[in-house]
Amino acid sequence: MSTEPTQIRLVDYPEGLADDTTWTTTHDPTPELLDGQIEVDVRIVSVDPGMKGWISPWRSYIDPIRPGEVMRAFGIGPVTRSASDRHAVGDVVTGFTGVQTTAVVDARSMRPVDADLAPLELHMSVLGMTGFTGYFGMLDLGRPEPGQTVVVSAASGAVGNVAAQVARHEGARVVGIAGGAAKCAYLTDELGLDAAIDYKTGSVGDALDEACPDGIDVYFDNVGGEILDAALMRINRKARIVICGGISQYGDMTSAAGPTNYLQLISKSATMVGFTMLDYLHRIPEAVADLAERVDDGTLVHRQHVLGGIESFPEAFRMLFNGDNHGKLLIRV
Amino acid sequence: MSTEPTQIRLVDYPEGLADDTTWTTTHDPTPELLDGQIEVDVRIVSVDPGMKGWISPWRSYIDPIRPGEVMRAFGIGPVTRSASDRHAVGDVVTGFTGVQTTAVVDARSMRPVDADLAPLELHMSVLGMTGFTGYFGMLDLGRPEPGQTVVVSAASGAVGNVAAQVARHEGARVVGIAGGAAKCAYLTDELGLDAAIDYKTGSVGDALDEACPDGIDVYFDNVGGEILDAALMRINRKARIVICGGISQYGDMTSAAGPTNYLQLISKSATMVGFTMLDYLHRIPEAVADLAERVDDGTLVHRQHVLGGIESFPEAFRMLFNGDNHGKLLIRV
Repeated sequence: MSTEPTQIRLVDYPEGLADDTTWTTTHDPTPELLDGQIEVDVRIVSVDPGMKGWISPWRSYIDPIRPGEVMRAFGIGPVTRSASDRHAVGDVVTGFTGVQTTAVVDARSMRPVDADLAPLELHMSVLGMTGFTGYFGMLDLGRPEPGQTVVVSAASGAVGNVAAQVARHEGARVVGIAGGAAKCAYLTDELGLDAAIDYKTGSVGDALDEACPDGIDVYFDNVGGEILDAALMRINRKARIVICGGISQYGDMTSAAGPTNYLQLISKSATMVGFTMLDYLHRIPEAVADLAERVDDGTLVHRQHVLGGIESFPEAFRMLFNGDNHGKLLIRV
Repeated sequence: MSTEPTQIRLVDYPEGLADDTTWTTTHDPTPELLDGQIEVDVRIVSVDPGMKGWISPWRSYIDPIRPGEVMRAFGIGPVTRSASDRHAVGDVVTGFTGVQTTAVVDARSMRPVDADLAPLELHMSVLGMTGFTGYFGMLDLGRPEPGQTVVVSAASGAVGNVAAQVARHEGARVVGIAGGAAKCAYLTDELGLDAAIDYKTGSVGDALDEACPDGIDVYFDNVGGEILDAALMRINRKARIVICGGISQYGDMTSAAGPTNYLQLISKSATMVGFTMLDYLHRIPEAVADLAERVDDGTLVHRQHVLGGIESFPEAFRMLFNGDNHGKLLIRV
């Protein structure tokens, strides 16, 4: 290859928010292939909220990475060398490539992608893990019915926008919560949601009262904190609260605030359920087919926020916290 | 009737814990029957944690009672007058009689009881609402499987002991949490649970680590607070957390603490579900039949703590908070 391999590595677990000292850039040579491995020319890296959990010393649904290791990330690109009969050179594959230009990985850990179906960016967003997360979380766990009221927090985010849109496709009345007028305008004007709430202006509770006069049947939560509490106070009987993330609680795991109003689960006979995509890996093909159809016919709107160059990773990671991105956060390597 | 009718009425919603000024005793005459009503000679009144919610100004699953009204309570006794063809004089019925010696109630609100099946005390405990709550909460929502680990808090309580025992009948390994050595001995020696944890001595988390080496599959929560958090940290994948009550949080609803570790729901793909007996009213006959059989064959152990005289209600109510009762709290009128 003409360019030097580049890796972004974790220096150490950050206390509180990550900063530039959290990461270091290396140019180590690409290792030799072992039997069963493939080499991937990483074209796009996905930057996702789940990464926050991967650089904390606590085990969540998967082990954290260790200091010194290449930062874990989903990536996509063509196979450039193969020591496996699972993927041939030229096949496009996706999986955990890490934040690096060239990845040597276990062939079994990578999923083949139909590059003719959609541009690679879409396979890392609406047709990728974040899209699948919104899709299964809403349809399999939220289970909105026509006419029900669905509220989605971080609704302009990579997961939330898909969750909100598929709920709308089910015939639900969908209210999105996002930060700032621009994102709220995106929710109503481009995604076609029934209402948008700007959590940065005024009381989310008051805004929910106005936007959800019949209460909340499904709440899809990406943020936790006060917004989760405000939603809990307004749930209907037999409501489903899908816990997809807790962005507001990730910064400092040790002092996270729990949902004060959780006893509403009793009085409303409601359910709060968590999940990760590990639960749905076997159902990815059906999600790809269904979501690709919705993209093709224009009913599923999507937007990517693409940064250039692997070195932009620390900047991209900061955006996970400050919300400066508009659309699914990706790095074009 | 030879004795004067007596009622215990709410003076006003207490701030914080109730005390003797919360209640007043009256001796108002029994009202005339309207069409569709019956008069019940109340023999036993049930004193239950749910009462705490009924004397707060916030609506939970049912409206709070208003200051001046007779305190709401489940009661049981024979019909002494009837203006309804639903229940005849001499039938034994149960339902909301209130804390009073004689109740005039809507006949449709009362459920007939087979007084030959068991003593009236049992129809107010293991064969009553608290028994049904433990039964349906565990079997329908907790759904323990043979060999799984089930943890029940307030396991010596009226609801918890039934939940714990039916889980054991399903073949689960059952760990009960209670306050004090006497209650813990009751759990292991009389109920036959696999282990008991005294939350008043030492760390509940450490004790759970020891008692649940394979993690927790079902957690039946009656208390909330730190014990709920400790359990959440130890749940297994696809665990079910059944929220039946939050005794530790009832004293001051406005500063209740939410479960800090609720994000475990995500990493463990777990479910937290609340319920009230309103969800299961239509299934009471099956619970009565099943529980009566378990009582008869000795597999379901039960204990009642019976106070004498309707005037003992304020003392009984205090026991809901200080846990001084051993067994289902009842008042023999």
